[in-house]
Amino acid sequence: MTEQVPHIVVVGAGFGGLEFTRKAARLPVRITLIDQRNHHLFQPLLYQVATTSLATSEIAWPIRHLVKRFANVETLLATVAGVDKDARKVLLEDGTRIGYDTLVIATGARHAYFGHDEWEPFAPGLKTIEDATAIRRRLLLAFERAERETDPAMRAALMTFVIIGGGPTGVELAGTIAELARITLKGEFRAIDPAKARVVLIEAGPRLLGGFAEDMSAYALQALNRLGVEVRLGAPVTDCKGDGVVVDGKPLATTTIIWAAGVAASPAAGWLDAEADRAGRVRVEADLSLPGHPEIFVIGDTAAMKRSDGRPAPGIAPAAKQAGKFVAENLKARLAGDSGPKVFDYRHEGDLATIGKRAAVFDRGRIRLKGRAAWWLWGVAHIFFLIGLRYRLAVALSWLWIYFTGQRSARLITQGRESEAAGRAGVVRQDRSAGSRQAL
Amino acid sequence: MTEQVPHIVVVGAGFGGLEFTRKAARLPVRITLIDQRNHHLFQPLLYQVATTSLATSEIAWPIRHLVKRFANVETLLATVAGVDKDARKVLLEDGTRIGYDTLVIATGARHAYFGHDEWEPFAPGLKTIEDATAIRRRLLLAFERAERETDPAMRAALMTFVIIGGGPTGVELAGTIAELARITLKGEFRAIDPAKARVVLIEAGPRLLGGFAEDMSAYALQALNRLGVEVRLGAPVTDCKGDGVVVDGKPLATTTIIWAAGVAASPAAGWLDAEADRAGRVRVEADLSLPGHPEIFVIGDTAAMKRSDGRPAPGIAPAAKQAGKFVAENLKARLAGDSGPKVFDYRHEGDLATIGKRAAVFDRGRIRLKGRAAWWLWGVAHIFFLIGLRYRLAVALSWLWIYFTGQRSARLITQGRESEAAGRAGVVRQDRSAGSRQAL
Repeated sequence: MTEQVPHIVVVGAGFGGLEFTRKAARLPVRITLIDQRNHHLFQPLLYQVATTSLATSEIAWPIRHLVKRFANVETLLATVAGVDKDARKVLLEDGTRIGYDTLVIATGARHAYFGHDEWEPFAPGLKTIEDATAIRRRLLLAFERAERETDPAMRAALMTFVIIGGGPTGVELAGTIAELARITLKGEFRAIDPAKARVVLIEAGPRLLGGFAEDMSAYALQALNRLGVEVRLGAPVTDCKGDGVVVDGKPLATTTIIWAAGVAASPAAGWLDAEADRAGRVRVEADLSLPGHPEIFVIGDTAAMKRSDGRPAPGIAPAAKQAGKFVAENLKARLAGDSGPKVFDYRHEGDLATIGKRAAVFDRGRIRLKGRAAWWLWGVAHIFFLIGLRYRLAVALSWLWIYFTGQRSARLITQGRESEAAGRAGVVRQDRSAGSRQAL
Repeated sequence: MTEQVPHIVVVGAGFGGLEFTRKAARLPVRITLIDQRNHHLFQPLLYQVATTSLATSEIAWPIRHLVKRFANVETLLATVAGVDKDARKVLLEDGTRIGYDTLVIATGARHAYFGHDEWEPFAPGLKTIEDATAIRRRLLLAFERAERETDPAMRAALMTFVIIGGGPTGVELAGTIAELARITLKGEFRAIDPAKARVVLIEAGPRLLGGFAEDMSAYALQALNRLGVEVRLGAPVTDCKGDGVVVDGKPLATTTIIWAAGVAASPAAGWLDAEADRAGRVRVEADLSLPGHPEIFVIGDTAAMKRSDGRPAPGIAPAAKQAGKFVAENLKARLAGDSGPKVFDYRHEGDLATIGKRAAVFDRGRIRLKGRAAWWLWGVAHIFFLIGLRYRLAVALSWLWIYFTGQRSARLITQGRESEAAGRAGVVRQDRSAGSRQAL
């Protein structure tokens, strides 16, 4: 019986793929949800993991748990290698071929370096949990190394943090790093004063938060300046190296660079042998299907989605979720024999960005908020969007604790080069106890 | 002025080194606390990270934050390479030499394979945060791979989890893995039934929890059997490989082996050119100083500490903490010109181990508890021993959530081989949204 219903394969369990799956699972279909990670990641809060505010597991949730209640949904942890459009099969890297009646591709984007991929080792971006813990390690290690450094120039470079890109991620990173240095780490070092750390936010364009209204940009600039962040506008970066960046033609010495400037779509266009725009996004029809292939949909950051007036839809979580819901409705109409909604349109629900602890901007056309009210709105909205009471409680506890004490609870240097501050491979271990039994 | 007071170097910020530092910091001394990690690890709960119950950051806390209030304590993230006893200097791996008047070595232990180091890749032990996340990855990946496996024998091996060592860590791991399979993962897979997972606990000795009273061992065995754990007693393991173990002369096919059987001290005996016992522990005087070097103390798992009646002190957190406090008191007496307490004695405060969600054993000589009361005592005691209200709240929330819902919140497969279930290097990304701005 269940073998007779259409089989839908969804690739990618991000905001778009998950939203589609949860809506389409109510239809008489069988769904296979494929992701190469076991967790759905709440990307908008990833910068908080990178800056020690949240634990990794607070924003990454097991995909199969999120779709557990749908008996017609099967979750596969697998890596896709390609699509055979003629045979209607998805090819996995291990050689398995999975047939589909309808295919939904929602594989997201990765950060991009505008033709300078050689910058990546020096200027890591922020897209996965591992990206976040790697940046967290770099940030915390820079202070640790500065504490032991005796050369003033090197110490200054270690105490300089450069963020490239003045969109919401860059603004939020800069604000949080400034607070980490000035509030959280206060009084914990003996040779350096963490409050003297330089946080430099570099934006090639003329203002921060380019997509927001102008007075919001001005407010963000002012709020960052109040936190001691140096903002460099109209300042293109022309080189990134291990010892610093070249900005506006001049070198700026730093050992910590974070890339928040550009994204490129996943390689789905290659799998589909489809036309893509310069950022690698698959060109799609107004109903988000692949031209000539009404049985294939591409949604979210992987697609060059348009609004009904022809302007591009933004590469943000709400757009991906709306696209997932749209395709599920389209599918429902098709199954019912109707033509269904034919033109995807993106409804903008507002722009929101935080700058440190008590400042934020919210821009929704007629409704615009700045400052503390926007900050609380931002916090409540994000907790609302988290899935599950358990994670809401945990994130609320983390945030309230930071709000009232300034202390961040995830200041962990983990994975690999912990001892890079000191030399090479580890000999000393701090691991104590637990020997062969445990006592009160 | 502060330059005139004695300089104490502490190597290792585990239970022993941290306890010593916090007590000795009140004396007229200057302390340098060196660790190769930036965090103090609450080792007794590490198995809960390995089994998805707790987040990494809930049991690992920044060392310099823990000693922030002591202005005379300096924290260094550094790796020690040796000690020059004659010059009274600690050598760091980067070549730095740090002079001391008094040296306290508290570098703990690492798991040991009784001469079978080649087993380590197949049977990882549990001593660091990375050990715990690696075991967590193996556990979760085994279920993911089993879901896709079509060969029945291979599927059975993937669904078999072997824990070697029947001490508290082994008992706690086995109980928690059984609950993870039977309760937490229930209903989330389509091809396999996680409740059918085989959890096998292997102990070479005649009973579980060898250090506890016999009826406690019997109770633990019964509680594990109730959870469906197969306990093999008097069963020596003679080989560990990628496809299984050889136990009692017979092969047992499994892809997941966890080592909870043996520990060996850190290489401190080598640094000190000191006499060590078979487990690598430095032989110390009754006052825990190095023979012939009253200015060097070795404490915790790094030392072969004895009780006043000559029996060995156990390799557990309370023993390390008591030793740290003892050496601080000794130092205080010396500074005051007194002779100080000369003979370390270990006060046993009870043995405690949990078996799954509602069972535990507590053995304190006259006071002995089993079952639910012991479980609650265990939980409350461990929350009490955590440092800081923030972590107590977070761990209490995690545990109460698991208690009432059975859901564990840290089911993350991270770092490296996530796609090993599926093939090779990742192409598909689930990372969505966050592009260049963020919206409500």
